[in-house]
Amino acid sequence: MIRFAILGAGRIGRLHAQTIARHPAAEVLYVQDPNIEYAHSVADPCKAKATTDLDMILADPAVDAVLIASPTNTHVDLLLRAAKAGKAVLCEKPIDLDLLQVERCRQALEGVNSIIQIGFNRRFDPGHRALRDAIRDGELGNLEQLIITSRDPGLPPLSYLQHSGGIYRDMLIHDFDIARFILDEEITELCAYGSALIDPAVAETGDVDSTVVILKTASGRLCHINASRRASYGYDQRIEALGSKGMLISNNRTHTNLERHTQQATGMREPLMSFFLDRYQDAFRLQMDAFISTLTQGQPASPGFDDGYQAQRLAEAAYRSLISGQSMLLN
Amino acid sequence: MIRFAILGAGRIGRLHAQTIARHPAAEVLYVQDPNIEYAHSVADPCKAKATTDLDMILADPAVDAVLIASPTNTHVDLLLRAAKAGKAVLCEKPIDLDLLQVERCRQALEGVNSIIQIGFNRRFDPGHRALRDAIRDGELGNLEQLIITSRDPGLPPLSYLQHSGGIYRDMLIHDFDIARFILDEEITELCAYGSALIDPAVAETGDVDSTVVILKTASGRLCHINASRRASYGYDQRIEALGSKGMLISNNRTHTNLERHTQQATGMREPLMSFFLDRYQDAFRLQMDAFISTLTQGQPASPGFDDGYQAQRLAEAAYRSLISGQSMLLN
Amino acid sequence: MIRFAILGAGRIGRLHAQTIARHPAAEVLYVQDPNIEYAHSVADPCKAKATTDLDMILADPAVDAVLIASPTNTHVDLLLRAAKAGKAVLCEKPIDLDLLQVERCRQALEGVNSIIQIGFNRRFDPGHRALRDAIRDGELGNLEQLIITSRDPGLPPLSYLQHSGGIYRDMLIHDFDIARFILDEEITELCAYGSALIDPAVAETGDVDSTVVILKTASGRLCHINASRRASYGYDQRIEALGSKGMLISNNRTHTNLERHTQQATGMREPLMSFFLDRYQDAFRLQMDAFISTLTQGQPASPGFDDGYQAQRLAEAAYRSLISGQSMLLN
Amino acid sequence: MIRFAILGAGRIGRLHAQTIARHPAAEVLYVQDPNIEYAHSVADPCKAKATTDLDMILADPAVDAVLIASPTNTHVDLLLRAAKAGKAVLCEKPIDLDLLQVERCRQALEGVNSIIQIGFNRRFDPGHRALRDAIRDGELGNLEQLIITSRDPGLPPLSYLQHSGGIYRDMLIHDFDIARFILDEEITELCAYGSALIDPAVAETGDVDSTVVILKTASGRLCHINASRRASYGYDQRIEALGSKGMLISNNRTHTNLERHTQQATGMREPLMSFFLDRYQDAFRLQMDAFISTLTQGQPASPGFDDGYQAQRLAEAAYRSLISGQSMLLN
Repeated sequence: MIRFAILGAGRIGRLHAQTIARHPAAEVLYVQDPNIEYAHSVADPCKAKATTDLDMILADPAVDAVLIASPTNTHVDLLLRAAKAGKAVLCEKPIDLDLLQVERCRQALEGVNSIIQIGFNRRFDPGHRALRDAIRDGELGNLEQLIITSRDPGLPPLSYLQHSGGIYRDMLIHDFDIARFILDEEITELCAYGSALIDPAVAETGDVDSTVVILKTASGRLCHINASRRASYGYDQRIEALGSKGMLISNNRTHTNLERHTQQATGMREPLMSFFLDRYQDAFRLQMDAFISTLTQGQPASPGFDDGYQAQRLAEAAYRSLISGQSMLLN
Repeated sequence: MIRFAILGAGRIGRLHAQTIARHPAAEVLYVQDPNIEYAHSVADPCKAKATTDLDMILADPAVDAVLIASPTNTHVDLLLRAAKAGKAVLCEKPIDLDLLQVERCRQALEGVNSIIQIGFNRRFDPGHRALRDAIRDGELGNLEQLIITSRDPGLPPLSYLQHSGGIYRDMLIHDFDIARFILDEEITELCAYGSALIDPAVAETGDVDSTVVILKTASGRLCHINASRRASYGYDQRIEALGSKGMLISNNRTHTNLERHTQQATGMREPLMSFFLDRYQDAFRLQMDAFISTLTQGQPASPGFDDGYQAQRLAEAAYRSLISGQSMLLN
Repeated sequence: MIRFAILGAGRIGRLHAQTIARHPAAEVLYVQDPNIEYAHSVADPCKAKATTDLDMILADPAVDAVLIASPTNTHVDLLLRAAKAGKAVLCEKPIDLDLLQVERCRQALEGVNSIIQIGFNRRFDPGHRALRDAIRDGELGNLEQLIITSRDPGLPPLSYLQHSGGIYRDMLIHDFDIARFILDEEITELCAYGSALIDPAVAETGDVDSTVVILKTASGRLCHINASRRASYGYDQRIEALGSKGMLISNNRTHTNLERHTQQATGMREPLMSFFLDRYQDAFRLQMDAFISTLTQGQPASPGFDDGYQAQRLAEAAYRSLISGQSMLLN
Repeated sequence: MIRFAILGAGRIGRLHAQTIARHPAAEVLYVQDPNIEYAHSVADPCKAKATTDLDMILADPAVDAVLIASPTNTHVDLLLRAAKAGKAVLCEKPIDLDLLQVERCRQALEGVNSIIQIGFNRRFDPGHRALRDAIRDGELGNLEQLIITSRDPGLPPLSYLQHSGGIYRDMLIHDFDIARFILDEEITELCAYGSALIDPAVAETGDVDSTVVILKTASGRLCHINASRRASYGYDQRIEALGSKGMLISNNRTHTNLERHTQQATGMREPLMSFFLDRYQDAFRLQMDAFISTLTQGQPASPGFDDGYQAQRLAEAAYRSLISGQSMLLN
């Protein structure tokens, strides 16, 4: 039985707490949050203890693992303290908005022997995972091109956008990670184009809301990511892979497969899901399964700290490319 | 070069004339119709002769084949005269509304050595034909069940319904033929249920507009036909076959594969075609190819006269079942 | 909090126990089975008590509801005892293989005021339910035809077939229920054709393994059910509804939406699920939600005892039709 | 009746000759080719005259239109001579491999008043055209992103690749044109990445066989083209458009809609077509319809000479970007 402490009692902390509570091999011991009422609202349904006291948690030998779901600017500090206290860590992405901070954290972790997994949940989506497994098993022959479509259902509040680190750090970071995961090679070149087409207020924050990015790997594989903050028809998440032996597509799913046929149109299905917690419900559950398996069976954590770092490097490079209007070499 | 005379200058005669005119190995010599203006309207664009004179056509040794597209009640007479004159015949279905007449025609044809093909065009639809070929080639293992969906886009005029011979003779006759074609066995039992659900005026003509029919073959294969005079979403023509090794579906087609994704629905395609000449455009062309190949290469005509007779027998049995409320044995 | 006793610790009893254990408003108090080891294997993971003693359970006022998952021939007895003890009952289908027994049970229940729900889980499948709700809400206009495709992935063991009551009582009973649920009218006529096409051993048990059934309602609606004990390509469960305004199809689902495109074929998805507990996982959960809502919110149980009785009447009539080769009137 | 002379009796000249011969408002008068036997092989089935003499054709007042289907390096010369002789011209793409030549041709055409249409047939594909029409009619709201997938079924012979002008001039030129057609704005920025992943021999010709290109328009619209010389699963030609109100996809078509369902996979359709003349059969026919309508009804030719020039400019810029590794500004 793996015993967890959850740090941060927001939306994503609550989701993880529920996932752990239902897991046959895990339980929630503590939910920590500076706001004790928030902590209680997540802890009580799991029969866990609510607390504001982090030191007590890290000192409690009954705690095997710490799940970091607090605000991004606290991640590095919590991650270091938990890892040094000998706890396994599952940390939500991004590690930090500032790549330099991530770099420092990496150095500080040298010699620390804890399991650290980063919360790139999409790697665990059954469709995306089946696509990657088929490629790894050679079904496509040589992988040549990868097309990632990543469109959020709608613009988040402007207040969020002002502090999110921008579209590449808060949104495409998932796509950079999944690209690395599937391409199975490091990226050597990148070019990003973007525009604020949805709302001029996005331009005023200095960011874009629509972007296309192309990537190239050492062996010449090509990858394209197209992303938008607003797909009015729902949360659109697809991956297409072209190889020497064929093509694979991990396509969207609808809640049911009810089809409507009318005088206006044929084969209508219900709209796509519009909430990431619905769309990636299975992925969050399977991510937790994987983390718990890592702890109980001893294989290396994946995606690990370095995966978090590399995705963030790509986000930085995308901003440099967007701003300079130039292609970027990564070494 | 196969030279045709077209008998009957209506909608279907015009279609066949155009098909022949475009065929590299065939041409239209005559278009015959009691109304000489109609005859001209079909003959002129094909550079054929318009005439009202049938005797002259049958006496002309330059005519290789006669296409019978005149009203149903003239089919038997024209078919006999053309066949006895030594012409190959492609005759539109049904041979006659009265099975006794078809039986008499069959007897009168004994010893007559002409090629006779009946216009069951659906056998030549590329999707339906590919389904049947895959079954014939053993892809499904043992064929067990067949589901035929046959829905017209809308109710024909009441004046047509009053003289059409009814839903089984004018509409399901195609489905009975395709069932025989694919099942590749004669039908031994049949049960038909029907209702006038679309328009009470149909009930007043003594007919139904919605029907389900089940069929059984000698070896126990099961077939189901569901049919409606009105599918508001378009002309719906599907065939599904279940066998020991899998399932095949010949599905509907839309004019383009444009998909629409909106807030209301996902994956909308344009409505189904609503006109049988569009839906079965390829089938009519391939039917003519087959007839011309029969003439030039000497293989037996298919579907032949007996296929026309057998489909009509099933239509008769369906009416007996509908009226009696009982299952019918066919021997 | 609704407290359950589970009667019967087989596969389906275990499923229900897990479903209840995860429900926030319910818990399992007892698992009863003549074999105490079986009872423990289901009870222990739920922290419930294992017992062989039914009387004790029915006498315990802490028990709100009884779930009957024992062998079919014990259903009537257990149902009557539980209902008379004032417990709410969720009883697996069928109520009994013998319609006369069901009729007697019905009479014995007169004046007994307990909630009784029958386990027709497919009514709760999200796709099937969405189809029925759309029809009820008028989206199709007048419902005219219903096509139910119901194919099991493979023949059950012969030992099961010898005591199952036959294809109509153990398998199509679900389809008869869903037909009544969607048609929203009683059936007045029925004709069934069947064959043993998959395994001659089925014929030796006096049954068929492939069947097509047509049904007609009082207002003339037509329904067709096609069923097979073996669909080599997986568990095939579809419903199609034709109405005056269009068509709806509740289509199959695959585990993921990964598509493969190769030189051999385009648009391949993974095979259909082959196990009913996977295919109807959501339906079992939503069925339990509905039962618990009935208890906590007081609306009538649905599907109720009479739904169980009516589906069984149709199964009996199907056998009479199959054996006599005749259409059956139901009054 | 529009009378054509066909210049060039190769594969594409033959296709156009057949298309014209079947058109009710057009006919082929001459087929010209330096090889008189080739000319005869195309002319004879159309009952046209075969000739090697271009001057005679241009001097014949009976010729309304000239179709240029000769080798690329003759296009500019023939186009100028035909236009100056007062003939309408339908010229195959590209106008010339050398943009400077195209520029000179443009200048030489100033003051010449002939109709000139460039053979960008894909604009006339029913699916692509329906997508563009829906966008033009406002169905998508503001168009934000365009994704063009353009994959040939297999590598052409190396001898072709050595003289084709390269992947951007011989293949993506179609995609650049369709991008301009749908975006309905000029391109202001472009970045191209490419690799020789299919065959090292391609690298030896100095070209790539796999490429991704991103484009940006004046108003900030983003476009992505992904292209490959070899899609082992067939000729893959898709367009996806994202706008403020939804998404449209012009999807691939298969010859039939036969679906196979087996133990291995669900929903298999036949492979994609593998030949551009099959895939774009309708497009070639509709392109000819449009050209003939332009002549008979007097509206401006589209796509015109400038469209040919602009697509070629993008091909040049793509090579500059590929070679320099840098993003290109177009003014």
